[in-house]
Amino acid sequence: MIERRDTRAVDVGGVLIGGGAPIAVQSMTNTDTRDAASTLAQIARLADAGCEIVRVAIPHADALDGFADICAASPLPVVADIHFDHRLAIEAVRRGAAKLRINPGNIGSMERVDAVIDAAGEAGIPIRIGVNAGSLAAEYESRDWALADKLAASAISFCEHFASRGFEDIVVSAKASSVQVTVDAYRRLARELPYPLHLGVTEAGTLRSGTVKSSVGLGILLAEGIGDTVRISLTADPVEEVRVAWDILASLDIRRIGPEIVSCPTCGRCEIDLIPIADEITRRLQDVRTPVKVAVMGCVVNGPGEARDADFGVAAGRGVGVLFAKGQPLRKVPEDQIVDALMAEIAAFAAEHPGV
Amino acid sequence: MIERRDTRAVDVGGVLIGGGAPIAVQSMTNTDTRDAASTLAQIARLADAGCEIVRVAIPHADALDGFADICAASPLPVVADIHFDHRLAIEAVRRGAAKLRINPGNIGSMERVDAVIDAAGEAGIPIRIGVNAGSLAAEYESRDWALADKLAASAISFCEHFASRGFEDIVVSAKASSVQVTVDAYRRLARELPYPLHLGVTEAGTLRSGTVKSSVGLGILLAEGIGDTVRISLTADPVEEVRVAWDILASLDIRRIGPEIVSCPTCGRCEIDLIPIADEITRRLQDVRTPVKVAVMGCVVNGPGEARDADFGVAAGRGVGVLFAKGQPLRKVPEDQIVDALMAEIAAFAAEHPGV
Repeated sequence: MIERRDTRAVDVGGVLIGGGAPIAVQSMTNTDTRDAASTLAQIARLADAGCEIVRVAIPHADALDGFADICAASPLPVVADIHFDHRLAIEAVRRGAAKLRINPGNIGSMERVDAVIDAAGEAGIPIRIGVNAGSLAAEYESRDWALADKLAASAISFCEHFASRGFEDIVVSAKASSVQVTVDAYRRLARELPYPLHLGVTEAGTLRSGTVKSSVGLGILLAEGIGDTVRISLTADPVEEVRVAWDILASLDIRRIGPEIVSCPTCGRCEIDLIPIADEITRRLQDVRTPVKVAVMGCVVNGPGEARDADFGVAAGRGVGVLFAKGQPLRKVPEDQIVDALMAEIAAFAAEHPGV
Repeated sequence: MIERRDTRAVDVGGVLIGGGAPIAVQSMTNTDTRDAASTLAQIARLADAGCEIVRVAIPHADALDGFADICAASPLPVVADIHFDHRLAIEAVRRGAAKLRINPGNIGSMERVDAVIDAAGEAGIPIRIGVNAGSLAAEYESRDWALADKLAASAISFCEHFASRGFEDIVVSAKASSVQVTVDAYRRLARELPYPLHLGVTEAGTLRSGTVKSSVGLGILLAEGIGDTVRISLTADPVEEVRVAWDILASLDIRRIGPEIVSCPTCGRCEIDLIPIADEITRRLQDVRTPVKVAVMGCVVNGPGEARDADFGVAAGRGVGVLFAKGQPLRKVPEDQIVDALMAEIAAFAAEHPGV
């Protein structure tokens, strides 16, 4: 069991972050915010995949009407992502934002930041202070410090300013595209701040390399009990961000949405074409929300051992598969019926255990 | 900089593992070992992707001739993977194995294990003691210990036996499909053994979830300086295992093969269809071996900052991209020429810096 770091809690439209609440999964829309219908359709897909909080960019004033429509109809709490223009942030609060995300270092002046703080405070919504290696405030950019220290010190000094104004409804992030910088920055934030932390590796890259960088960086931090909400940044469909986020949480047994699939890597011992079978089972389990452990094994060496440990499993040999449930062999089925037979067993179980 | 754990070194057909050598990337063929031509074709693809040691299963005696042909023609050192039958291991040594992988717990008796040790010792090749949660020796399986302790204790006791026989040309692994169990087991091995460690999360799953589990588990260990060679287990084309392994090593700045791509996740601020551009750049850089950092940004907020830090980059806006090199803007190019223009810059640089 991982011991979570103790933090304050903030409420984002009914979803708690920090204070011992489950680590919340976030993503961000990449549709045009002015196009509320497309953005809401993407939010619906994100919610189906297990997204719990969604962020939407407001790049210009002409996105504010769309943002209001999105907030009114979204099934998820909506965070307004604002850069440069404090008036957009204040307006976003009026239009229904459940939380603001700003980088105080690029808002222009602390007076303007204060106006945003006051607007959020009056509306009773939290602010994420999102410092980013790509947009550090000039006073930190020029220092001869390690980047992780620049990021952390910048975020901490903004937190102190917010607190001095009586506002502590804060979530903090300090993202870099370097895993080591990200890890070092968050470790310092975790030591020095009482606020919940939003984890992410920024500009992580395309699907595979971004998945790896995010998994390594967030895995290290989460295993140390650091992190209260996560957003995976991928140059890909944001639904993939949500799937990777859940896979990371599941990998450390922190939270699980739906099934865990263990499947063997196949080797020269494998007497069955296992990869399409495992892919098909994975695909057909994608919308199942029951937390079952399913083993898909093509090997007499590790297959029975791992399948025994699973809720359901198949150990497949030449042209046949032996189905298992809770350690007990059920029956042999021909190769072309393995997937259907396994899915039927899981469906019967899932009907009795609908999951989260 | 990560401080690596100090270990003995072993030589696998010219590739060193441990003793401060670069962390070696391994994979395993999933072709039929009797079919040497197909197996060698897969090994060639693995080598192209950056695989440095390849493992081949010998499930039965009728795979031995193919194994010999594979060893004779492989561009990579070949490890023989043997279960149950010590005679196959001894025969594999004669047929040219650069290393053996056995799980001493399933070889039948310590006398038979000793025969394998002696054969490897005479040939001067190392043995990996590969303990696995799916095939623990019965004496450990039945104990009331945490699984990580069963795995580690079993591996350590085999090491002691090998050492008592004067054989210390050992690599050790203790894999489970649980990340936490894997991490705990390897931490104990790292504390208690002087031998290099082969890292892996076994039966990690299909492409996405297996990538995540492997990245989290190996990322945690590698960041602590633990691990001397890695094999990613995926139910997928083994070439993907090699790519993920390199991405994990690169994510922690341990080793890099070819370019690093940072790319933004796109959001409502993005005025260009960035995902296909980033995917195309990633695809076209796949065979480049020069370690360049390439930024693909669709945003005026973080784009210029990150692109400035990269060797080459593009910050793309509405219909155009600004190319950067080493912090200096080069020129604007129309959207449909971004990829070609960026690739031309990188190709010119790569011609002068052929990489590793």
